[in-house]
Amino acid sequence: MLNVGLVGYGYWGPNLARNLADAHDDVRLTAIADARPERRHSAERRHPGVRTCADAAALIASSDVDAVVIATPLATHKPLAEAAMAESKHVLVEKPLASSRRDAEFLAELAHKRGVRLMVDHTFVYTGAVRKMRSLVDSGDLGQLLYLDSVRVNLGLFQQDSNVIWDLAVHDLSVMDHLIDARPVAVSADGSCVAGYDHENIAYITVHFDTGFLAHFHVNWLAPVKIRHMLLGGTQRMLVFDDMEPSEKVLVYDKGIDLNHHMQDDQERRQILVSYRTGDMYAPKLDRTEALAGVVHEFASAIAERRAPLTDAGAGIRVVSLLEAAEKSLRSEGRRIPL
Amino acid sequence: MLNVGLVGYGYWGPNLARNLADAHDDVRLTAIADARPERRHSAERRHPGVRTCADAAALIASSDVDAVVIATPLATHKPLAEAAMAESKHVLVEKPLASSRRDAEFLAELAHKRGVRLMVDHTFVYTGAVRKMRSLVDSGDLGQLLYLDSVRVNLGLFQQDSNVIWDLAVHDLSVMDHLIDARPVAVSADGSCVAGYDHENIAYITVHFDTGFLAHFHVNWLAPVKIRHMLLGGTQRMLVFDDMEPSEKVLVYDKGIDLNHHMQDDQERRQILVSYRTGDMYAPKLDRTEALAGVVHEFASAIAERRAPLTDAGAGIRVVSLLEAAEKSLRSEGRRIPL
Amino acid sequence: MLNVGLVGYGYWGPNLARNLADAHDDVRLTAIADARPERRHSAERRHPGVRTCADAAALIASSDVDAVVIATPLATHKPLAEAAMAESKHVLVEKPLASSRRDAEFLAELAHKRGVRLMVDHTFVYTGAVRKMRSLVDSGDLGQLLYLDSVRVNLGLFQQDSNVIWDLAVHDLSVMDHLIDARPVAVSADGSCVAGYDHENIAYITVHFDTGFLAHFHVNWLAPVKIRHMLLGGTQRMLVFDDMEPSEKVLVYDKGIDLNHHMQDDQERRQILVSYRTGDMYAPKLDRTEALAGVVHEFASAIAERRAPLTDAGAGIRVVSLLEAAEKSLRSEGRRIPL
Amino acid sequence: MLNVGLVGYGYWGPNLARNLADAHDDVRLTAIADARPERRHSAERRHPGVRTCADAAALIASSDVDAVVIATPLATHKPLAEAAMAESKHVLVEKPLASSRRDAEFLAELAHKRGVRLMVDHTFVYTGAVRKMRSLVDSGDLGQLLYLDSVRVNLGLFQQDSNVIWDLAVHDLSVMDHLIDARPVAVSADGSCVAGYDHENIAYITVHFDTGFLAHFHVNWLAPVKIRHMLLGGTQRMLVFDDMEPSEKVLVYDKGIDLNHHMQDDQERRQILVSYRTGDMYAPKLDRTEALAGVVHEFASAIAERRAPLTDAGAGIRVVSLLEAAEKSLRSEGRRIPL
Repeated sequence: MLNVGLVGYGYWGPNLARNLADAHDDVRLTAIADARPERRHSAERRHPGVRTCADAAALIASSDVDAVVIATPLATHKPLAEAAMAESKHVLVEKPLASSRRDAEFLAELAHKRGVRLMVDHTFVYTGAVRKMRSLVDSGDLGQLLYLDSVRVNLGLFQQDSNVIWDLAVHDLSVMDHLIDARPVAVSADGSCVAGYDHENIAYITVHFDTGFLAHFHVNWLAPVKIRHMLLGGTQRMLVFDDMEPSEKVLVYDKGIDLNHHMQDDQERRQILVSYRTGDMYAPKLDRTEALAGVVHEFASAIAERRAPLTDAGAGIRVVSLLEAAEKSLRSEGRRIPL
Repeated sequence: MLNVGLVGYGYWGPNLARNLADAHDDVRLTAIADARPERRHSAERRHPGVRTCADAAALIASSDVDAVVIATPLATHKPLAEAAMAESKHVLVEKPLASSRRDAEFLAELAHKRGVRLMVDHTFVYTGAVRKMRSLVDSGDLGQLLYLDSVRVNLGLFQQDSNVIWDLAVHDLSVMDHLIDARPVAVSADGSCVAGYDHENIAYITVHFDTGFLAHFHVNWLAPVKIRHMLLGGTQRMLVFDDMEPSEKVLVYDKGIDLNHHMQDDQERRQILVSYRTGDMYAPKLDRTEALAGVVHEFASAIAERRAPLTDAGAGIRVVSLLEAAEKSLRSEGRRIPL
Repeated sequence: MLNVGLVGYGYWGPNLARNLADAHDDVRLTAIADARPERRHSAERRHPGVRTCADAAALIASSDVDAVVIATPLATHKPLAEAAMAESKHVLVEKPLASSRRDAEFLAELAHKRGVRLMVDHTFVYTGAVRKMRSLVDSGDLGQLLYLDSVRVNLGLFQQDSNVIWDLAVHDLSVMDHLIDARPVAVSADGSCVAGYDHENIAYITVHFDTGFLAHFHVNWLAPVKIRHMLLGGTQRMLVFDDMEPSEKVLVYDKGIDLNHHMQDDQERRQILVSYRTGDMYAPKLDRTEALAGVVHEFASAIAERRAPLTDAGAGIRVVSLLEAAEKSLRSEGRRIPL
Repeated sequence: MLNVGLVGYGYWGPNLARNLADAHDDVRLTAIADARPERRHSAERRHPGVRTCADAAALIASSDVDAVVIATPLATHKPLAEAAMAESKHVLVEKPLASSRRDAEFLAELAHKRGVRLMVDHTFVYTGAVRKMRSLVDSGDLGQLLYLDSVRVNLGLFQQDSNVIWDLAVHDLSVMDHLIDARPVAVSADGSCVAGYDHENIAYITVHFDTGFLAHFHVNWLAPVKIRHMLLGGTQRMLVFDDMEPSEKVLVYDKGIDLNHHMQDDQERRQILVSYRTGDMYAPKLDRTEALAGVVHEFASAIAERRAPLTDAGAGIRVVSLLEAAEKSLRSEGRRIPL
């Protein structure tokens, strides 16, 4: 039996609490900490058998807490995770793992020293859609991967303490990190703090690879429509992942190109130089299990099996590094920042 | 009566010929020049009463040609337009106006000296959708403009002699030039020549303004789906232009934001700091007249009225300048290139 | 303070319970009855302060129950509502009101005699979309109403005890009853029990009016895609209600026709005889409050104000009459059944 | 070489002329007849080498006309086809074959007597989408066919001389005739002549089979949106044919049902009695050749090979019979009319 304490019962905490409470594994939610009385009250109503407290330190110190789930503002991830690991507790941290690469690496090292599991909640990695995309990449059906293009835009919610990159792009960067085995070499980003806001509410991030693969991300809090759209192009097949579709979220197009380099009459400028292959499209059936259930299951399994979880500290460090580089590029006129 | 000669009967020429032949204005298509016999043969079949010839120079010199329409590969725009204006003929050039800013400026100056009209065929400016968008901008209904985001992707057609920027982005940059009165100050671009192709087939362009307005363009010849999507965000209202929609192409969202800067409890990280206004959406009825008919009409009217056309040499220079800067940025690691 | 008891905690009961518990009005959920222990257990977990019991009769007889909400299988609506009204309790019944017109009329008469409120939960009438549609009808903007066409199809859920008409069409018929003031005169229906099933899983219903207005309903449990689509045509404007759209559910098209009866050359068979008016389309902002909250509010208000609720026994009788006639038509080769 | 004469150069005639002119087969368009001078003038401009005449009889009698294509108003199909076959010419008639079953059967018999080919232009049968659907039916992948549901609605074009059934439903009935091998036994139809129009502009047709299969058609000239949507349900798989989609027009859903008849607790009314199978969806690549090219090819091939064409007189008779029965049902309160 794994006894789990949850720190933070704000926006995401209730979802974690529900999945911890419903977990089929030998998982038990024993305590919830939140400094705000009304949030504790809410937690008590929904989880009558679970102890609540105002003080995260008390929860972390409890003998009936073997593992700590941290769903608090980003700035507190590092001190809370550090405190929990200092008590030899396993830790699951809401994304992003930390607010800097240095902090993320510090936590990873501490986990290693203390022999505990440190996992980051890259939720999208556990969706049926992304898992299917990963299996399509693994199968080789896509051929050589060429590019990834992601759009995640909607109206709000603006956050007080960070920009749209740390809030939205973190999702898509974690998906890229999961799907693409090649390691990026640089990041550039442009953005704007329009409408008098303090932080960027529109941003474009380009992630560069030395393999020729290119990844690009558009995140925007000021769009009139909600778009969640990703393209993943390969030489053999190409994917569309549209998360706004209620059922067929991943479409696999049997499309690709074959190049031929014949000389052309110079007036024939629109001559097609490549042969396009176009075939069927299909939409694989996706597992519809809630992603957070998979997060909880993986956390519990990794602890039980004494192995690294799928989204381990390394994934957390890589994603934070990308965010940090994107932020740095934003602050230096879109300059390409090496990783 | 305006007698018009057309040079180039390849991909776009037949559309121009058809619209010149159908024009209600006092316009007459008198001659078509194309070096390729089979293209002349095709022109003769479709336009039995129109003279054809192999030699553009002969057409330009003809006494029954008052104005020359140039629909040839980009590299030939400058010499052909120069030759026509040297003969005091008015000139309409397929977009982009020329292959460099210098050439575009040279042509503009020559037109000025010779007292002839020089117009560039920025076709999209003449669509019902873009004209409606311009009138919405003019009305002030959108409030202060914040950003423009454009996506134009599909599978092929690759071109032999240029990259995806010169082929596809030219459309969207000409739309931006038409809609946005502020002048851009710099351009940056990233792209990739994936799949072994010689020119970029994927590119992202960012156009910077010192007003805080931001414009971004995604063009891609390697996408499995065809997307023609533009967002134009204002403080009061926001537009979506989806050119794949058969009828309601422009949607106007009565959405905007009001900022309020109250202090928040520091754990309340997801607290909304802005009030969103959301109201009705509407899709204005659009004029469905073919855009090229408007191009021909504007060309004839500008000549008759001895005035600059809507898409004059200045527009042509501005768009070529953006393309040139984007190309330069592509060759220098995405560095921001001042205009 | 209105004390409410809920009978039935199966599929729909929990939604009613939640809305009763959350109601801002002076409403209190005091008791829940369900014969099944596991359903009572579930109710207790979610509503710790609410008494549960196995026996509906005990609940009905309780002194702390002023009004009874019935969310049980259709066959039990009549006896339960009758028992509750016999105790002078107000009653809200899940749709349809009863399994026959005769039973529905009996209940209406009993409510009248006992001086209590009898309301039917025609949930869709309380959605923002349908309320907006009603206000558009009221405004006269649509002109004379011409037709209503409704499609409600998906894969399953099949029901044990009834066919697709009683399960799905009841929604759309209640919407029609709410929107259309004219009274229907006859009903015809066709359907099929395909795939070896006992009850019709596909059906088409036509509702006839003597005004020329025509209404038609397609309901289907065997469709591979989920469609929730309604057209409402008027001489001046036409509506589309697409409930699968996440936000713009109601579209108002400024389209209509003007007839002109000029004689035509007899070979000119495709000559347009009517002038089409086409103008803007708009999507009014909709109230997104959960419909069931409106149901609960209306029930409480009607009781407090001693007035008939919006979806009163009369609406319940009319919808049951339509269902009964459709069923009869299904059993007699699609014959038109007068109402 | 097959010399073909075309009678009628109105709405559809130009499309036939173009496909006859472009045919790769040994087909030559030699003459076009139309009583209207301006239509002949238009034909001459587009087809300079083709003779035109005012009189259909003269065309039919010409020695350089081996086969006659008839694209005239419905009422003239029979006399023109009769005249052509009397001269031993092969005949292709625009749909529907004739205005009554009797006329259609008369023409079929005459063709038989004269030993000529009689073909009806059921264009949709020759689309890539319908041909793919037929091959899916043939493959058995759909299992036992359960139902067909078709919607074809838009605003206008109203016709002077017929109702929406003869104009629009003919397409979908011809598709049904092609896809479904079982023979229908009866037809019922409801409709309305709304907005003061002389003929029905809205209609619903149900086609009954004694196999339990059910087909239903909604045609409407008064809808604010254009819908071209067909469902074809089978026990193993289900199809959606959406002709408004630019590329993926046919979607094949691996969905079906397995029934199980266990007794259920009687309060558990929403208990699922069937197991749904849901799997992948796929969109087969479709041949994009213009359907009319296939019509012309099939006509020429059937003549050359002295065999019945795919859409032979029998198909024409069956579709006219359905239309006639639907019309009769419209005139008798939707009564089911045996075929």
